[in-house]
Amino acid sequence: MTDKEIEEGNQLMLQFEKRGGLLPVVVQDVHTKQILMLAYVNSEALQKTLETGLATFWSTSRNELWTKGMTSGNTMKISAVLIDCDQDALVYLVEPRGGACHTKNENGEARKSCFYRQISEEGYLAFLE
Amino acid sequence: MTDKEIEEGNQLMLQFEKRGGLLPVVVQDVHTKQILMLAYVNSEALQKTLETGLATFWSTSRNELWTKGMTSGNTMKISAVLIDCDQDALVYLVEPRGGACHTKNENGEARKSCFYRQISEEGYLAFLE
Repeated sequence: MTDKEIEEGNQLMLQFEKRGGLLPVVVQDVHTKQILMLAYVNSEALQKTLETGLATFWSTSRNELWTKGMTSGNTMKISAVLIDCDQDALVYLVEPRGGACHTKNENGEARKSCFYRQISEEGYLAFLE
Repeated sequence: MTDKEIEEGNQLMLQFEKRGGLLPVVVQDVHTKQILMLAYVNSEALQKTLETGLATFWSTSRNELWTKGMTSGNTMKISAVLIDCDQDALVYLVEPRGGACHTKNENGEARKSCFYRQISEEGYLAFLE
């Protein structure tokens, strides 16, 4: 498996072993382009995502397959799955149904994105919403 | 350190140990919202990023601090650094100068984004450009 095959080929050669068995997935709203969350997949989670069209991950806290929204109802319909040059990172372009985050805003609603705070130059966190 | 402090606080409590010492960083173009690349940081790389205003990472292949563009000239000026609910993933919002990817397109230019291929339902890779 050469760099050229990985970078310029049309064959899927996911580099799981390079990253300890799991690859990071950036979840992006296909319409607004907002980054909603970052999670991880193993081979099974990616395969289920491609088969069902619903964003599925490997939960690193529960150590189990996790189709987003099966409990909360806030599923994410897959529009496309992108892969990077090194084949060790993915992007799920999704149509989210409800908020992506498990945390809630001041109105008690699931936050749209997990990235709701900014790090200041002094190292403090400022809320964006 | 409670979940509430991590999720709702204004103190930086990066969860490096949860992710084997390095945290993933999604790099997003602040103007077009395109996702350009995914890389990793340790504490030193994040601190340098905040101090210099230039996107800096920990290179997992070379095992060294890596300020993007120091060799190629394709630096990335930081517009904001976002952090997620669990404090174990970051977003760099940047103004890129030149392509983000180390690979080149058919015109010999650095590709704008590392995510230039899409995974088809059959598991093949299709070039987006």
